[in-house]
Amino acid sequence: MPRYKLTIEYDGTGYVGWQRQANGPSIQEALEDAVKAFCGDDEPSHAAGRTDAGVHALAMVAHINLSKEHRPDTVRDAINQHLKPQPIVVVGCGQVSEDFHARFSCIKRAYEYRIVNRRPPLALDARRAWRVSQKLDADAMNEAAQCLAGRHDFTTFRAAACQSDSPIKSLDEISVSRAGEDVIIRCAARSFLHHQVRSITGSLVEVGKGKWRVNDMKTALEAADRKRCGPVAPPDGLYFVRAEY
Amino acid sequence: MPRYKLTIEYDGTGYVGWQRQANGPSIQEALEDAVKAFCGDDEPSHAAGRTDAGVHALAMVAHINLSKEHRPDTVRDAINQHLKPQPIVVVGCGQVSEDFHARFSCIKRAYEYRIVNRRPPLALDARRAWRVSQKLDADAMNEAAQCLAGRHDFTTFRAAACQSDSPIKSLDEISVSRAGEDVIIRCAARSFLHHQVRSITGSLVEVGKGKWRVNDMKTALEAADRKRCGPVAPPDGLYFVRAEY
Repeated sequence: MPRYKLTIEYDGTGYVGWQRQANGPSIQEALEDAVKAFCGDDEPSHAAGRTDAGVHALAMVAHINLSKEHRPDTVRDAINQHLKPQPIVVVGCGQVSEDFHARFSCIKRAYEYRIVNRRPPLALDARRAWRVSQKLDADAMNEAAQCLAGRHDFTTFRAAACQSDSPIKSLDEISVSRAGEDVIIRCAARSFLHHQVRSITGSLVEVGKGKWRVNDMKTALEAADRKRCGPVAPPDGLYFVRAEY
Repeated sequence: MPRYKLTIEYDGTGYVGWQRQANGPSIQEALEDAVKAFCGDDEPSHAAGRTDAGVHALAMVAHINLSKEHRPDTVRDAINQHLKPQPIVVVGCGQVSEDFHARFSCIKRAYEYRIVNRRPPLALDARRAWRVSQKLDADAMNEAAQCLAGRHDFTTFRAAACQSDSPIKSLDEISVSRAGEDVIIRCAARSFLHHQVRSITGSLVEVGKGKWRVNDMKTALEAADRKRCGPVAPPDGLYFVRAEY
């Protein structure tokens, strides 16, 4: 069966996350429904990452098999037509070989977390960023973050519900930078634990506020104890931005 | 009476525009209701610009009189508290002298129009930008735009309903630039005619598509004839970004 790689942008607000669940609308279900409406195929889709409820994507990658061959542009436009008016859009589509797997072939995943650091609430960016009122020291956050780069036991920054076999992961890149009111946290790794980026973000914000010292991040990591994690950041500011193959 | 200058960010989607109108919710009405809820004062507000239905603001400036003095931060936070959950936020507040008038003292207004130039619809930026599918030549648009800079009769780019005394306006700055998928049009002037930026934008898009030659912009301007205007751009991509005093 011809296989298609789809790059998908979505506003995760109001969805239970990527993965199909009984308790509400998912991105996966919306996508598969649109595919079925387009060509009748009732095929499961597979994605590079399983974003949580309320988490967004600029470029999630998924694949799906279709029973017949179509031009990739036709697949993209037809799925988009049937996704309307949902805030889910196929921004790229290409045919791939049958050994391409959006989840298992992925060698790197990248997330960005966007904080708006100001006292007034967000009008235009409501549910698209986390507003943090207290002034953040982004340089201190970046310094504290560096202890997380590399291979570590990330138990401290892992949700209780995490289904990963092991808490040991390699974090390839992490940085914190400020651009005006925005404080952006960028993370890239082969794979992530459940709530890892939001747990790290919440803890880095404690550093940014001066509640944690820079070195407290390392102590928390080394404790390998979930109770040492800072408050988990809300989903609103998190974006899946890239999958590499 | 103490007078306060307010800088306001809003998502114009679902509003009839800045100005209070009988046919739907306005930004002005929401602001004045919040002020009344805060301190009981039933005072009219005045703004630098009257944005149309669906047009956004990053930094609209308005002023309002209050019967008693309050700390500006208190005014900002209290109004924001009462504006919730509407997508309207006071991002700045300062006390000003009674000869400050948000509309009449304003010497320059700046707008930005954001086009996303791609075929797929917008998920995250729906109603925050105008998606134009056909590839746009931003350099040609910028070249064509330059004939509009300076003092001209802008009848071609003026809504039939425009209440301005004269169609003659000075456009101080206009530029078109591309950043990835985004094509941004920036305009600044002491004052604008009704629908002027959206009329100019729609016409520049005709240039960008190659339907108009660069010189057709000048011909359209010089015709001083509304029928020579291109299709008026939708409100979704327009932002009031700055008022200078």
